[in-house]
Formats: sequence, structure tokens, C-alpha cells
Amino acid sequence: MTTDGMDIRDISISNAEWRVIIDDFESGVNQGPILNIDPDDDREYDAIFIGGGAGGRFGSAYMKAAGGRQLTIDRWPFLGGSCPHLACVPHHLFSEAARELDYARTFSGRFWYPEFDESKASILEMVQLFLSGRNSAHSFMNYQSKEQLGMEYILNASATVIDANTVEAAGRIFKAKNIVIGTGSSTRVPEVPGIGLKGVYDYATLIEELDYDPRSCVIIGGSKVAIEYGSFFQAAGCQTTILARSPLMAGTGLHHVDDDLREYVVWGMRERGIVIHDGTETLEVLGDDRVTGVRVRLSDGTVTDIPCEMVFIGTGERANSDEYVKTLGVAVDDRDSIIVDAHMRTNVPGVYAIGDIIGPPMEMFKARKCGMTAARNIMGEDYTFDFSEYPDFLHSTYEVTWVGLSEREAREKYDNVIVLQMPPPGVPYGDIPLPCADGTMMLAFTHPERTGFQKAVFDATSRKLVGAHHVGYGAKDGFQYLDHMIHTGDGVTIDQMAEMNELFLNPSHFIQLARLRAGAKDLKSL
Amino acid sequence: MTTDGMDIRDISISNAEWRVIIDDFESGVNQGPILNIDPDDDREYDAIFIGGGAGGRFGSAYMKAAGGRQLTIDRWPFLGGSCPHLACVPHHLFSEAARELDYARTFSGRFWYPEFDESKASILEMVQLFLSGRNSAHSFMNYQSKEQLGMEYILNASATVIDANTVEAAGRIFKAKNIVIGTGSSTRVPEVPGIGLKGVYDYATLIEELDYDPRSCVIIGGSKVAIEYGSFFQAAGCQTTILARSPLMAGTGLHHVDDDLREYVVWGMRERGIVIHDGTETLEVLGDDRVTGVRVRLSDGTVTDIPCEMVFIGTGERANSDEYVKTLGVAVDDRDSIIVDAHMRTNVPGVYAIGDIIGPPMEMFKARKCGMTAARNIMGEDYTFDFSEYPDFLHSTYEVTWVGLSEREAREKYDNVIVLQMPPPGVPYGDIPLPCADGTMMLAFTHPERTGFQKAVFDATSRKLVGAHHVGYGAKDGFQYLDHMIHTGDGVTIDQMAEMNELFLNPSHFIQLARLRAGAKDLKSL
Repeated sequence: MTTDGMDIRDISISNAEWRVIIDDFESGVNQGPILNIDPDDDREYDAIFIGGGAGGRFGSAYMKAAGGRQLTIDRWPFLGGSCPHLACVPHHLFSEAARELDYARTFSGRFWYPEFDESKASILEMVQLFLSGRNSAHSFMNYQSKEQLGMEYILNASATVIDANTVEAAGRIFKAKNIVIGTGSSTRVPEVPGIGLKGVYDYATLIEELDYDPRSCVIIGGSKVAIEYGSFFQAAGCQTTILARSPLMAGTGLHHVDDDLREYVVWGMRERGIVIHDGTETLEVLGDDRVTGVRVRLSDGTVTDIPCEMVFIGTGERANSDEYVKTLGVAVDDRDSIIVDAHMRTNVPGVYAIGDIIGPPMEMFKARKCGMTAARNIMGEDYTFDFSEYPDFLHSTYEVTWVGLSEREAREKYDNVIVLQMPPPGVPYGDIPLPCADGTMMLAFTHPERTGFQKAVFDATSRKLVGAHHVGYGAKDGFQYLDHMIHTGDGVTIDQMAEMNELFLNPSHFIQLARLRAGAKDLKSL
Repeated sequence: MTTDGMDIRDISISNAEWRVIIDDFESGVNQGPILNIDPDDDREYDAIFIGGGAGGRFGSAYMKAAGGRQLTIDRWPFLGGSCPHLACVPHHLFSEAARELDYARTFSGRFWYPEFDESKASILEMVQLFLSGRNSAHSFMNYQSKEQLGMEYILNASATVIDANTVEAAGRIFKAKNIVIGTGSSTRVPEVPGIGLKGVYDYATLIEELDYDPRSCVIIGGSKVAIEYGSFFQAAGCQTTILARSPLMAGTGLHHVDDDLREYVVWGMRERGIVIHDGTETLEVLGDDRVTGVRVRLSDGTVTDIPCEMVFIGTGERANSDEYVKTLGVAVDDRDSIIVDAHMRTNVPGVYAIGDIIGPPMEMFKARKCGMTAARNIMGEDYTFDFSEYPDFLHSTYEVTWVGLSEREAREKYDNVIVLQMPPPGVPYGDIPLPCADGTMMLAFTHPERTGFQKAVFDATSRKLVGAHHVGYGAKDGFQYLDHMIHTGDGVTIDQMAEMNELFLNPSHFIQLARLRAGAKDLKSL
């Protein structure tokens, strides 16, 4: 037990020991800062990373590996940031639960599946499962960062920036050549009457505060979070209505979404009972003390009240930049995101910003690579990071993955575009059980329309792959490498794909589909 | 209904219509050959493909796309060969069932999962599910090959090779410049007394003949098929014992298997109750009419009888080459595989052989690319196919994927090898819930030891990735591209991996693990 902080520099702490320590911080048994500072290193810090989330931790690791000296400060008693605490990690647990619940319901009373008991489906239970285990990830971050990566850090302490070279934390003053700000973003709460009522959650408060099992939900907004959490809520027995402005996946937040891919995803959500309205304006969250419904203007102008037991905010994020505007004078854009160049430099010399605080895309790869980019520049390299192109992913009941151009974008850019597609254009989803792979095999034999959708887009003139789109399971890892191949060097051609070694039954059938067509001088769609 | 064959050349047949036609062939309502031959093309065939499985179909598609004329002949009323009929496709269905059954048992009585009722687990029911739907794949192959790929074919007809340019089928003689043989392989039945008893199956007869639900099984052999079907049998409520000669995954059939990966896979199988004996010699299958057990000599010399209700042969395959040795004089090796060069040419001019009939690896990518290779050479290209290196995959209860060198092989080849590994070396499986991703999230929060295992192996001097190894879910697609990147051009370095855009939560954590270490000039393991 500690109430005035702990200096752990000379102690080796195992993963299991960290779990106990962090639990004790969370319960209040432990208090005060955790100090892991090297007293024998008298070099000035090359950088202090404010925030030990994805960007700060990966930036620190890179800097440390490169021989620099870093200090990472986080307000929580663990590194890793919001992702393993209340954002991406629970979302993946919930998405997996959605998929398993979908199977349990789809196969209710068949094979070894008993009749599905709707009363057993529960959002709350999955939230509790997550809460019971999230410190495992936290402890690993602390363990790995200290024992494996050799980082210096201060945890459970807020960092106050004095100037571009000075930070106060845990009652001490630290000097550094540079400061790297990575304190993330928070839900941008829409200005709607009643939004403060009990029973209104965002992804963060859902984890921290949910204490009942809602059986109906209205989601305000059509962001990725809205699709992902909405799909989980519906699978977990909570009738879900999504009120979006733009059609789902067509908003400004997502780029390169293929029309056919979007149609399949939205069809699949509706097929499972999710009600989706776009072109809406949310007018009011209804209720006295607790939420009872949402008043909305629909696309046809009708105003209607949708009763519900929970409201979920899925409108997107805003950068946590206010403090740094005030203390350092960093410039921000009209959404409060800190403006940086491709080196992650702000307008203030020696001050870098990384991760969600610089605006979208608010994705893990971007945060981590922002951290690496800041570290490389601080260590003397001239290194830039362009995240205008990247593979993207979301999880409805399915995994949805895409990279490069949509078919429409490709046709606007190139004269001669072909697609390799499953099901083929014009063939109804249910007519052939393709694409399928591990994760959709049982569907292939029972509900062929539910196996997924995929499309590879080629510029037939250069024969290059210019886009790939997939709904199903298990394509995520591959799309990382497809992104690399499409966007590196000369790209990748249909002929090269035809020569790759597929691992049957591969989720994306792109290699074999490419081989079926690659023999031709004049390529044709499939 | 047809009893003397059908000429379908001028008819467009939809996928749905093919399903009915093939069903009618299987039930005997339709009989005789299906003829899809272009009467308006008076060119001699560039090649006749004997066998319309993976190799023959992909070879034909490539040749046709390249402007050649091909004829594909298969004894079954559908193209696609044994894979969708009784081999790889049912295996993937069974592997998915194994995974879902594993979840149902692991979470029995928790969350929405009811108490698992062992009496509901059934091998037979999954076999029947497969049988009820396999014609979907068959019909798609016929549809795609004709309507999309423009192939000529004769189905439901055996092809008799007269000489290297002449084939008889459906009562007609066909001449071709070349013949491409792709009639596959069959189980090499071990010479053990009692192997012909009722209740002894291989992967093919299991599909065609199983008519009861065995509650115990002995598998003779330790091949991939033994691991994959054994894992399914155990999950489906059938207590399974594997009698192998070599330790599982260490036999001659699989290369580049990492020791730690193997240890994790075998641990996971035993953890689920599979009994594994290696160093065994199977002496006799016991029983009068029906199997009652297996007599085996164990590695310590003890002879023991293991009672069981089913015996499954998992000893490997042998090429179906006898006919072509006799009629054409093709040369074969000591396992009856047809000997070919890297162009797929046999010793007989104008005769090519492709796929399983040329020996291991008996994998889909190899069969298909053999077909493409034969087609390219026949069409005048000088094209070789080297399949000595390829990514590999099997499915226990987990997906298991690997490519490149094992750690041990890498250390033999390079002076300075590092690994990035989860769980890290020396850390017990259950101590950290990593690696995890969609497919193992619920395990991460309940059974951390079951989330998987992974290792990336680098030559620290060149900084190149030389091997990757994964147990979990969803890494298969990625390993195809990792194989391409490792084995093409200059390969891929840890620095390039650190710059890739991972799709969190990616099944193989290789990109982010690479980034944690790539900052260093002297690389270290993680």
C-alpha cells in the first residue's frame, strides 16, 4: 500500500504484480504518483511525452531504442491510454460478442445450439466482463514499457506544462529539449436538450457507468462508433435505432468506402433488426431524470418520438487541446485539433503533438506512428508521416475492411477499370455462398447471403490493384499488407497476385480470383 | 432429366439451375456426360486437362484467358475436384464447428451460453450439414467456369488417354497438342490387419459413408489431416486418441515448424482432452465386423489395446498415377508421384502433370499454380514454378499459420537473430492475454492462456524478417502477403514493418511489435 507515491526504479515488477498494484490504485488503496525515473542518467530529456497512450508509448519506445532519453507522464496509474481502458479494446470484445451472439441466434435450436434465450443477452454483462479484466492489459503495458523497453515514466500524475521546455508533475519540475503532447480526444457531445439526462452514454461512460441492461437504444450519430456499438447493442438484445445525418459510412469520417460494400454492410445491419434513419436531425433527448426517448426530425420532415431506455452518442470526437492552447499557444483548427506538419511539429518550436489530439483519423496506427515520427525527428532524422492513405476497418456484426480506391473513385481516375467480385455483380447475395472462409463456413451451408462480400479493383491498363474491399472475417491482417503493397514502390499487379501462394481457404479470395483473370492481355471483370 | 447426356453449349445455366442439375446427377435421375464443347472453334486443343479439380480448372482458366483452347474432363458431374466435394471445404466447416464448440464448452453456463449439453455435440450432424450444401460449391464451379471463364468441358465422363495427343471421353475421340494430368491423390491406407473393418474412415469415406456418431476415435497417423480432423472430433464430443510416429507437426510432411509454435499447438490439443502418443507403431485394428479398438505399440515398447468406436486414417496421401504410368509411361518416384520439372513437364513430351499427383505439398495454392504453370508453358512462355518455399497453415482448435524460417533454422543460418514474441519467452501462456484479436477477445478476459502464440524472427544484421509464426485466428490472409514480401525482391525489414499501417486489433501484432524495436541500431528481442 502506498499513499504518497511509489518509486519503482530499482524494483523489477512482474506482470502479475502490476495487476495487484493497479487494482490497488483503482480502489484507492494506493495513491500518489508512480515514479520510474533513472537517477543515474544525468542527460537532459530529449522529450517529455505528455500522455502515455498509443502515441506517447510508441514514441517513447522508439526514442529509447534509438538511444534518446524520454519521460512519459500519464494521469492514470498505467500506460496505454484510453484504448485498453475504455475504447478500442472493449469495442473488440463487444464486436466478438456480437458475432457469437449472432451465431447463437442464427443457429438457435439447430446442431448443438439450444433455443436462444433472449433474456440472457446482455450489454451489462459484457461491460462487466471487460471491467473485470482490463487491468491485464494495463499491467502488461507497465511491465513491457519498463522491463522490456526500458522507458522512464511517471504515472498517476497530471502533467502541467510550464513552457516549451518545462513540465511539472508529481511535485517536481522536469526540463526537456522538447515536449510531445498526446492527450487524445473526447466525445463531442451534441448540443441537444436533455443530453445530460441519466441513461445517456458515450463509449467512455458506457464502460464506467452503465448499471442496468437497456432493452432499447437510440444512437445519435452515424460514426464508426455508432455502427460498431449499435451492432453490439442489437446483438446483445437491445433494440437499436441509429439516427444519422448522412447515410452510414458515407459521412466525412470515412474515405474510399465502396458503394457495394456499404450496401452489404447496411443490409446486414437491417437484416439483424437495427433501424437506421439517415437525413435526421435530433431535436431533444426526452425524459425527466432518466432517458425515455428521443425526439427526431426524419428526412421527410416528420417529427417523431422514439421511446428508448438508453441513448448512445455516436457523433465523433474532439481534441483535448484547450490546456495547450492556453499554456503554450499551440495553434488549433476549427475542431480544436492541434495543427501539426508532417514532422508532428506544432507552431511552437520544440512542441510536437501526436495522436487523436491532431484530429482524424483517430486510429491506432496513426497515433503510434505519430509518436514514432516525433521521436525520429527529435532524434535528428528528417522524417515525415503522411496518413492521407491507409487501410480502414470497422466491425458491424461482420468485420469490414477496405484499402485504396472504391470502384467509383477508380472509374473516375482510370479509363479501364475491372473488378473481381464475390458475389459477382448482379448475383443476389443468397445465390452463392461466396466469399466464405473460416468464420463463415456454417453460414455458407445455411445462410449463404450472410457469408460476406468482396471486391478487388484494378486499373486494367497498368494491371495494378488500386483498391480492395471485404466484408466477412479474417481479412484484417492481410489488408495491412495489401495497403503496403498498393502504396509502396510500383504497387502490385494482378500478375504478381496470381503468383502469390494463397492459404486456402483464405478470407479474401483475391489471389485466386486474380489468377483466374491474369492470363488475359485485355483484362475482364469477374 | 437426361439419361444419355446433355449438350449445354448453347444454354446459359444459372448457379441455381446447376444445383438442380447436379442434384439430379447425384440421385441418378440424370445420367451420361455433360458436354460443353464449342462447335464453332475448329482449332486443335492446346491442351486437354484430365481432371477438373483445382489444378485443371485454374490451368484451364489461365489458358483460356491467354487465348488458348482447352478442354477439361472430369469424372464427376461438376468441376472443382475433391476439395469442395470431400476434402478441404468440409475440413474448414469442421474446423469452424470445432472452434464454436470450443467456445460453447469453454463458456458453458456463463454469459448467454447455456450449460453445454455433450449429447448435442455430433460429428454426423456436421457431415450431414456439409452433404446438404456441397452442391452449392459444385454448381458455382460449373457456372463460373462456363459463364464467366468461357471454358470448354466434359463432365460426368471418364477420360481414357490413348496417347500423348489423344483422349477418349463420352464416346468421342479428342486430339490435343498437350495433355495435362491432374487427377490427384488418395489416402495411402496403412497395411495394418483389420484396416478394412467397418468404422474405419479416411477424410473421403467419412463424408460419404459415416452413418453413426462415434463417441471415441483412434487416429492412425500424425498428418495435418490427423490434427485437423482430430481436433474437430474431440470438439464434437468424440474422445480422440492420436497415434503418431513422429511428434505432431515434426514429421516430414511439414517444414519450418517453430518449436515454440508446435509446443503451443500440442499443449492446446491436450488441454482440450485429445490424447496424443508419438513414437507408436499401430499393430492391428481390432473388431469382428465393426471396429472395437486399436492395438498399438507405444514408444516405451508396451503393447496396449485402445478401445474405440471409430478409426480414422491420417497417414497421408498417394498419387493416383497408375493409369498414366501404364498408358503413357510417365515416370514416377518411390511414392508413385509423377515426376515433373519446374515447367510441370513429365518425361513424356507433350504430357504435363499438376497438383497432388506430382506429390507434396498437397495444397491448394500448389495445385492451382501448377495448372497455371502448365498453361503458361503450353502457351509459349518459359515459366517455372518453385514451390520449395510457401506459407503453411493448419487448423487445430486454433488457426495455425507460419512462413519462412523457424527460430531454430534462423539461428543455424544467421549469427544474430532476434525474435518478437507473444507471450514473451519465459512468460507462462496464462500470464498475459496476448496475442489476442477478434476471435480471442472473450478468451483474453477469461482464459488468457488460450489466446494464442506468435513469433516474428529477424536476422538482426540485415534487419530482415526471415520467419513468422502464429496461433490464433485471422492471420491467414496476412501470411500470404508476408510470404510474398519475405520471398520477393529484397525482402522486408523491421524498419519497413514499423512504417506499415496496422489495423488494430490485428491478429498478428507484428507491425506494432516491430515498431517497438525498430528504433535501435542493434536490434533486441522482445
